[in-house]
Amino acid sequence: MKVETQRGSITAPIGFSASAVASGIKKEHRLDLALIVSDRPCAAAGTFTQNRVKAAPVLLTMEHLKTGNARAVVCNSGNANACTGEKGIASARLMAKTVASAVGCEPHQVLVASTGVIGVPMPDARVEKGILDAVKLLGSSHECGDQAAQAIMTTDTKDKQVMASLEIGGKTVTIGGMAKGSGMIHPNMATMLAFLTTDAAISSELLQQALKEAVNTSFNMITVDGDTSTNDMCLILANGAAQNPAITESGSDYQVFYAALEAVCVELAKQIAADGEGATCLIEVQVSGARTLKDARAIARAVAGSSLVKTAVFGNDANWGRILCAAGYSGAVFNPETTDIYLGDVLVARDGAGVEFSEEAASQVLKQPVVVLKVVLKEGPCSATAWGCDLTHEYVDINASYRT
Amino acid sequence: MKVETQRGSITAPIGFSASAVASGIKKEHRLDLALIVSDRPCAAAGTFTQNRVKAAPVLLTMEHLKTGNARAVVCNSGNANACTGEKGIASARLMAKTVASAVGCEPHQVLVASTGVIGVPMPDARVEKGILDAVKLLGSSHECGDQAAQAIMTTDTKDKQVMASLEIGGKTVTIGGMAKGSGMIHPNMATMLAFLTTDAAISSELLQQALKEAVNTSFNMITVDGDTSTNDMCLILANGAAQNPAITESGSDYQVFYAALEAVCVELAKQIAADGEGATCLIEVQVSGARTLKDARAIARAVAGSSLVKTAVFGNDANWGRILCAAGYSGAVFNPETTDIYLGDVLVARDGAGVEFSEEAASQVLKQPVVVLKVVLKEGPCSATAWGCDLTHEYVDINASYRT
Repeated sequence: MKVETQRGSITAPIGFSASAVASGIKKEHRLDLALIVSDRPCAAAGTFTQNRVKAAPVLLTMEHLKTGNARAVVCNSGNANACTGEKGIASARLMAKTVASAVGCEPHQVLVASTGVIGVPMPDARVEKGILDAVKLLGSSHECGDQAAQAIMTTDTKDKQVMASLEIGGKTVTIGGMAKGSGMIHPNMATMLAFLTTDAAISSELLQQALKEAVNTSFNMITVDGDTSTNDMCLILANGAAQNPAITESGSDYQVFYAALEAVCVELAKQIAADGEGATCLIEVQVSGARTLKDARAIARAVAGSSLVKTAVFGNDANWGRILCAAGYSGAVFNPETTDIYLGDVLVARDGAGVEFSEEAASQVLKQPVVVLKVVLKEGPCSATAWGCDLTHEYVDINASYRT
Repeated sequence: MKVETQRGSITAPIGFSASAVASGIKKEHRLDLALIVSDRPCAAAGTFTQNRVKAAPVLLTMEHLKTGNARAVVCNSGNANACTGEKGIASARLMAKTVASAVGCEPHQVLVASTGVIGVPMPDARVEKGILDAVKLLGSSHECGDQAAQAIMTTDTKDKQVMASLEIGGKTVTIGGMAKGSGMIHPNMATMLAFLTTDAAISSELLQQALKEAVNTSFNMITVDGDTSTNDMCLILANGAAQNPAITESGSDYQVFYAALEAVCVELAKQIAADGEGATCLIEVQVSGARTLKDARAIARAVAGSSLVKTAVFGNDANWGRILCAAGYSGAVFNPETTDIYLGDVLVARDGAGVEFSEEAASQVLKQPVVVLKVVLKEGPCSATAWGCDLTHEYVDINASYRT
């Protein structure tokens, strides 16, 4: 099912408001604290980093989500509140409590996220004041959504937002989303945050199931398995304000909702990949003909994550051997001797060996803003797509002095 | 057992000669073909890339090694002879056959290695002529060894060589080695070749056992598991010319030999890590207090391989959170809340949380040519060391236009 997405924000669904402030966590008076609030209780779901080192807000939000319901999300940038010991947990709890008091809900209904430098204690007083200021600015306009999307950015050069609409039982249901993420040598290493809102009525169990599946085909395809930052999370709140017949089982209504949710997540994932630190293009790796979905995904991710592939794309160098080499070490089961490789529509290798091709045509493909690399395995029915970006001098500049 | 190594070459052990020529595989008349020959048959052993895509010379050499004996190694740079189909296998066989005819042995006694661009057919005529020229130049001088070490280089900026001597049964035994390798974002991705010679008398079974173990603590510690190029290999020839009592069981003679072999491999591995593409320093990651050797190695490798750690070192930025983060996604089992981190001797985090430290002292550590990062787990008896290098602008320059 193909779903059209459009530019839009987390305030698009009925009943959600948002705001952002410059609380002083970041230097230079930049927006660094975002708030999302629903006017009524929501079913809530989340997926989290698999890193053994989990930041305090990750641990707190996992605990809060056990109830499956929430009212608000608070997220700061500039400080990850990771590797901060007991003090870090106290700071995350203070954020939840401050939001809860100000908007009138229980602390466990507030989900907390952070991104930024690791190992530095949170400036609690500033954050507390920032939250109180943000509550006063809450609104449902596009501008409020835009500001929230900007406030969660770190090295991102653009904010990432999207929305999609669908119809369930004659009611229009809207899904909005915003995300941050960058740092694309190990895509997985940079903190990836995504916050989704919807006015759909859906049980928290099905919401969790849909989110997990959508994350696997979107955000996890710009991420090497298990290789995640200390702070990654993706949250969704569903407040039921659209008044559709509640989705409580996996029927056609669920399928329609899932398709729209997946489209929103894929679009945000592509926006993240394209905004890799220092990146000049989006790389889309399409793998087809794999024996299993797991193999297809492993190959797509390995190719999209290969530093040598990424630098070759940056240099417009049709070095397809690096693509096959990355597939070879991906862990996937496949036969290199029946593998074809295309740069865009230009066939560069057939059955594992190079063929004559126009260097100029190949180079043209590599100069596009979206570079498509295709790996065709001819062994089975499974496909997968992963996204990455090229690797440039600017990546090194950005990361060599991130903390100082 | 601590063994001293010194500068030396593969011609240091008795009975080995070497040579190199510019056969025309590389442009600009650079050395690109190396030959190592023993004046008598050798026990031989090897370890190979785990990549599912294996270059033709890898497949051929694995086949030839089944007999456990060899006389010569031929290695070219400039062309990997990988992803070259049937033609590639024929080219590798031609190399073995040409050497065998010229030095007077069987083709299966010749081991073949290649490194360079993937997917381009070998220029057979040039290679054949180059081998015949190289045979005429064979010699046992230092200079012959040096030239061979230079001929296997690709993006290496320095040749890598080492030797060590030991005594077994009153006889002096010598081990010589040379290696090539660079490309340190995914250390594993660049082709790593190492060729070792020794005049020890040892059975091929014990030689294989010793090589495998030594490779695991040396070359594989600059390599993320399973993540290898299409062409990696490490070969050793032992010709018995030292006339020591033959090592045929795992006693003290074996232990003495193993210790020297490990020292040679570790020194070559460090030379490779230090010469990472564009690198300005060697990073040594020391992990101690792990529950298992597997955990210690996984953490050491993950930290040494983290692009964010590597760029932080390049920027002299004491961003220790990235070290703990990399440990967290390494797959190792450990408790971040009892982990200490040191930059050199500067304690920067205790029990998973930051402590006050002198930024100046930490920055000084990061400016050294050898930067030591310590991860102390306090959970068990196991230690491991891994090596890497910083990530700089030059890496991107080198890899953006490698093929063109």
